Amino acid sequence: MLHFECDYLEGAHPLILKRLMETNMEKTPGYTTDEYCDMARQKIRHSCACPDAEIHFLVGGTQTNATVIDAWLRPYEGVIAAESGHINQHEAGAIEAGGHKVIALPHQEGKLAAETLKDYLNRFYADETYPHMVNPGMVYISHPTEYGTLYTRSELEALAEVCHQHQLPLYLDGARLGYGLAARDTDLTLPHIAALCDAFYIGGTKVGALFGEALVFPRPGRIKQMFSIVKQHGALLAKGRLLGLQFDTLFSNNLYFEISRQAINRAEQLREALEALGYIFFVRPQSNQLFVLLNNRQLNALKTYATFSVWDAVGTDHTVIRLATSWATTEEDVNQLIEALRRIRQTD
Amino acid sequence: MLHFECDYLEGAHPLILKRLMETNMEKTPGYTTDEYCDMARQKIRHSCACPDAEIHFLVGGTQTNATVIDAWLRPYEGVIAAESGHINQHEAGAIEAGGHKVIALPHQEGKLAAETLKDYLNRFYADETYPHMVNPGMVYISHPTEYGTLYTRSELEALAEVCHQHQLPLYLDGARLGYGLAARDTDLTLPHIAALCDAFYIGGTKVGALFGEALVFPRPGRIKQMFSIVKQHGALLAKGRLLGLQFDTLFSNNLYFEISRQAINRAEQLREALEALGYIFFVRPQSNQLFVLLNNRQLNALKTYATFSVWDAVGTDHTVIRLATSWATTEEDVNQLIEALRRIRQTD
Amino acid sequence: MLHFECDYLEGAHPLILKRLMETNMEKTPGYTTDEYCDMARQKIRHSCACPDAEIHFLVGGTQTNATVIDAWLRPYEGVIAAESGHINQHEAGAIEAGGHKVIALPHQEGKLAAETLKDYLNRFYADETYPHMVNPGMVYISHPTEYGTLYTRSELEALAEVCHQHQLPLYLDGARLGYGLAARDTDLTLPHIAALCDAFYIGGTKVGALFGEALVFPRPGRIKQMFSIVKQHGALLAKGRLLGLQFDTLFSNNLYFEISRQAINRAEQLREALEALGYIFFVRPQSNQLFVLLNNRQLNALKTYATFSVWDAVGTDHTVIRLATSWATTEEDVNQLIEALRRIRQTD
Amino acid sequence: MLHFECDYLEGAHPLILKRLMETNMEKTPGYTTDEYCDMARQKIRHSCACPDAEIHFLVGGTQTNATVIDAWLRPYEGVIAAESGHINQHEAGAIEAGGHKVIALPHQEGKLAAETLKDYLNRFYADETYPHMVNPGMVYISHPTEYGTLYTRSELEALAEVCHQHQLPLYLDGARLGYGLAARDTDLTLPHIAALCDAFYIGGTKVGALFGEALVFPRPGRIKQMFSIVKQHGALLAKGRLLGLQFDTLFSNNLYFEISRQAINRAEQLREALEALGYIFFVRPQSNQLFVLLNNRQLNALKTYATFSVWDAVGTDHTVIRLATSWATTEEDVNQLIEALRRIRQTD
Repeated sequence: MLHFECDYLEGAHPLILKRLMETNMEKTPGYTTDEYCDMARQKIRHSCACPDAEIHFLVGGTQTNATVIDAWLRPYEGVIAAESGHINQHEAGAIEAGGHKVIALPHQEGKLAAETLKDYLNRFYADETYPHMVNPGMVYISHPTEYGTLYTRSELEALAEVCHQHQLPLYLDGARLGYGLAARDTDLTLPHIAALCDAFYIGGTKVGALFGEALVFPRPGRIKQMFSIVKQHGALLAKGRLLGLQFDTLFSNNLYFEISRQAINRAEQLREALEALGYIFFVRPQSNQLFVLLNNRQLNALKTYATFSVWDAVGTDHTVIRLATSWATTEEDVNQLIEALRRIRQTD
Repeated sequence: MLHFECDYLEGAHPLILKRLMETNMEKTPGYTTDEYCDMARQKIRHSCACPDAEIHFLVGGTQTNATVIDAWLRPYEGVIAAESGHINQHEAGAIEAGGHKVIALPHQEGKLAAETLKDYLNRFYADETYPHMVNPGMVYISHPTEYGTLYTRSELEALAEVCHQHQLPLYLDGARLGYGLAARDTDLTLPHIAALCDAFYIGGTKVGALFGEALVFPRPGRIKQMFSIVKQHGALLAKGRLLGLQFDTLFSNNLYFEISRQAINRAEQLREALEALGYIFFVRPQSNQLFVLLNNRQLNALKTYATFSVWDAVGTDHTVIRLATSWATTEEDVNQLIEALRRIRQTD
Repeated sequence: MLHFECDYLEGAHPLILKRLMETNMEKTPGYTTDEYCDMARQKIRHSCACPDAEIHFLVGGTQTNATVIDAWLRPYEGVIAAESGHINQHEAGAIEAGGHKVIALPHQEGKLAAETLKDYLNRFYADETYPHMVNPGMVYISHPTEYGTLYTRSELEALAEVCHQHQLPLYLDGARLGYGLAARDTDLTLPHIAALCDAFYIGGTKVGALFGEALVFPRPGRIKQMFSIVKQHGALLAKGRLLGLQFDTLFSNNLYFEISRQAINRAEQLREALEALGYIFFVRPQSNQLFVLLNNRQLNALKTYATFSVWDAVGTDHTVIRLATSWATTEEDVNQLIEALRRIRQTD
Repeated sequence: MLHFECDYLEGAHPLILKRLMETNMEKTPGYTTDEYCDMARQKIRHSCACPDAEIHFLVGGTQTNATVIDAWLRPYEGVIAAESGHINQHEAGAIEAGGHKVIALPHQEGKLAAETLKDYLNRFYADETYPHMVNPGMVYISHPTEYGTLYTRSELEALAEVCHQHQLPLYLDGARLGYGLAARDTDLTLPHIAALCDAFYIGGTKVGALFGEALVFPRPGRIKQMFSIVKQHGALLAKGRLLGLQFDTLFSNNLYFEISRQAINRAEQLREALEALGYIFFVRPQSNQLFVLLNNRQLNALKTYATFSVWDAVGTDHTVIRLATSWATTEEDVNQLIEALRRIRQTD
């Protein structure tokens, strides 16, 4: 059985396990105050071209989103997100548990357009009763999005411009950031993101780490005593060095970018084959996630070869599935999947 | 200047003030434990044909909604509401402050259709990842809705049936309940509502009281120690008898229904005149709120005669306004407004 | 039966009801944006000698405390209070529902001493692990306290000085503020309080109003968009003018202070009689609340004459009770209570 | 430099790292639904003699406490804890962030006595105003406590009995549970704890794992949809198998108990030496934490040899420090520390 349902099926990149083994019996202070965390911070600052960035290491994505949003918003404020945003769909109400509404706006293939945001804000403040409503307090986007799509540099600039005009912090959820940065047709780099966003996280869990997310505030001191808020959210790892070691490894010798590139290469290989075989994409593939429209016969046939995510039913006869590659996907895996998809097409 | 912007412009029905005067120097225990509250509870139980109903008196609507929803939901649950619902639009995040998402569904003129609810629930539970999402925990509707529309008896039955199948409590926000019950073409009565809903509140603030809402649980004991939750929400009035006295007065001699009927008569008078004058309704008027589409010349002209609520811009040239009558609206007021609207039409 | 269990047994001062009657059918905008609220604000500003004070009108005390504390604190901060403070004891967890710990410190007859606060703060910041703990974010005191005691001017100055050094806002719960200001041996005035505190509320519910508290920020703009936070807490009264009218009346012609003085006179009359009769005070009486130690025979005997609050058991044979006077207590009531207490002593 | 400041200085037991290496490239489903988690659950059930126990794996202790307490309590309820309890002191308000008060009761060397609990409950319910107060909703204890002390079997039975009488769930924080179970003079076993508590967690972070806590409900189904609440708290690890693998390893071949025993042996060795050298214990040592009273000369001298935790100042001249052993402490480390402590004594 082949496995393509998500990008967190395996453990960690072998270099990370090697570092964990080598340092296992070292004694370090806890709570991300150790030297490995500091080394990782330095390397991330360098990659972001932000020498003063404030960086916190947390364990998982939902946790990171809930913590930073809770830290930023005042009680009567909500966070704007695309309706398809992870915080609006798949975090079991973690944002609301912090007391805040997710203000869901229409999306375009998972992306929040600057125009959509602007229209909402104009409409909101045109309504004289707005002090009776949840006020917009920050903007959440994901890159790549939940549909695997990517903001272009000019799209992100436009969004940041609207945010800036309304003094709304712009926060980017980078659970799969590596795959976005390594995509073939992107013009966005880590320094661009750091220049345009007020906070973002660099995902480790889905990009080579056992777990862990690096939360970056390009301009430090935006949140007073963020450490305590991380602790309050149960997001402060006792053996914080585990996070430091992983990110130090990922940001040494370009590893984070190289393994991301490999996942993209696999995804591209798969995309080309699917196109050649005449499969239809629900969304134009841009990073490591491919959303494919199957009829139900194809769907059932594929189940005998591989695991995948069922995304949505389309009518009664079709289903959108997601195939994801990752840093750990091998060329052999992809070849076998392509072969299976070829056979399924032959019986159409 | 005429005033038609809302239904809480004046104080209270004179009979209420009279009772407050008469009883002013009486000494009663606090926190709605007095005899006036008990008398009011008995009368409301009778009106609802629910001899065992558990009834709490709170001060305002947002407060009541936030308290009952917080009391009912478990942490990972949200409350389903029409997208236009008051809890989703105009409560400054009071529900989210209690930790819960408002799950907003499409509405039909302010109403949540049983089919809409059913489709959402089927879709929700068909998604295997639903334990990662905010789970539906109860259903909120308003009657009359924020658009002044009314559920029919069969619509409410259908909704209650879907709720029942999924063990979702059905809660009805009756901020303007009197105006709904007194509407000309409704087939819903207070006993029907009590039979079909798990909780609802009978609005006082907008229907003759200085302030106050009577929260009714037709079947008692659904929420353990509701009294403490009311207190925790800052919704327990020290001089609770003020609420008891007002509701006792409103539910004596049919007062609540009679003054509601009067508001409806004024609204009907206005509706007929508007129709005769060729004005266009944005929503078919059913209770005491009339949503009228004006062009901007009409809009500006009307501003010189009367106050009203601006609801929404329609394109660049038109605006939807709301005109509301109340228990306190006089025939003279309505006649003058009609005369003004007539003049405005003459210059078209 | 005589009634001395609390200071909110009756309705409102007759002048307030008179104003409500006179203005009942006036049409005013809602949500405390009306002229009566503005008039009341002006008079309160004048009484506080704070021409720029920002003033919000809320309905009740628990609500006001929860709203202002939630508005002020950051997520990881708590509010310091005397262990006996109302927010720590009798608000059913309203502060914690907003996400914040009440940091309870030892009290002296209900008061928080500057030294106690200083010691706690020194100890707190001396502990290197303090970022792992709830950080002090503001200080809550009540005046009069829950034991009816009063801060002296120098005590409040000392407390404010410690708060100032640590940049902690000082908030004063004035549920019974009138009785504190009218006390015989106080040297604190409303302008002193306004000069020393960052926020406080002037209690109406217990001092002549039907309900209502005036929340004063002597220096405006400390809390951004406080209006929305009040709304979110369900504390924004639709017919806000009811609050404006009440406070406008109370702050016209010195009414608030005169009726408070009358309650104090009654309390002094009672105190002198109790002393003469040899009753023992649990706390030295300073305002309108008297805490008296009774043996159980006396306790049971008194129950046949009067209602009162049972405060605490002392050993198995004694009980502390509270007797409260109010603006509505008559000389006749007090004389009868004294007579009853005299009879009870005679049978000792 | 020697390191004795805490029990989470190193990585994980080598067998755990070995398992992580061996299984690294396996593909497993996420969110603790994999087979390793199931294997670990089976072994823990066996160790607890609870064949039906419901077990969740979370990442850290604060997170686990916040999640289970939030899951269990109703809005107006608080959690009872010893004043010294971790949730009351060192979790940055995580419990209050969930909306609940920590009801802090006096402790005896970190323990909550059944009598203390009983007295509080009797007093609480004797006060007629209790519905205005935070109601007790569950009881939190830690074992070993924050002072390293241990409940005896009869103490825990007595506590459970009081809880049972008042229908209060009893929850045990076992961050260092291994060290408690391996202590020399304890009569409490894991099956006892499982029989007496309604929930508890078996700490991994401090007892041989990289991270991870196993939350056990001995009787399943007590919390509806606990999975979603774990997710909402950001406590659901994507690569859940990391938790499963670690606990499976710890609960194979008695490893958890053996490494705990080793830490206890080291602590005993240290305790005996300290006693022989005439050092004074602030609390009688019972598990892997030793609280020693040093004068300030000794304190400064020790700083040149070893790291340790500063617990509390005692007067101006003395300080209580904590020395902790762990599964990773070597005999050599302890011998060197003893030698240092001997030298310090010689200069007294």
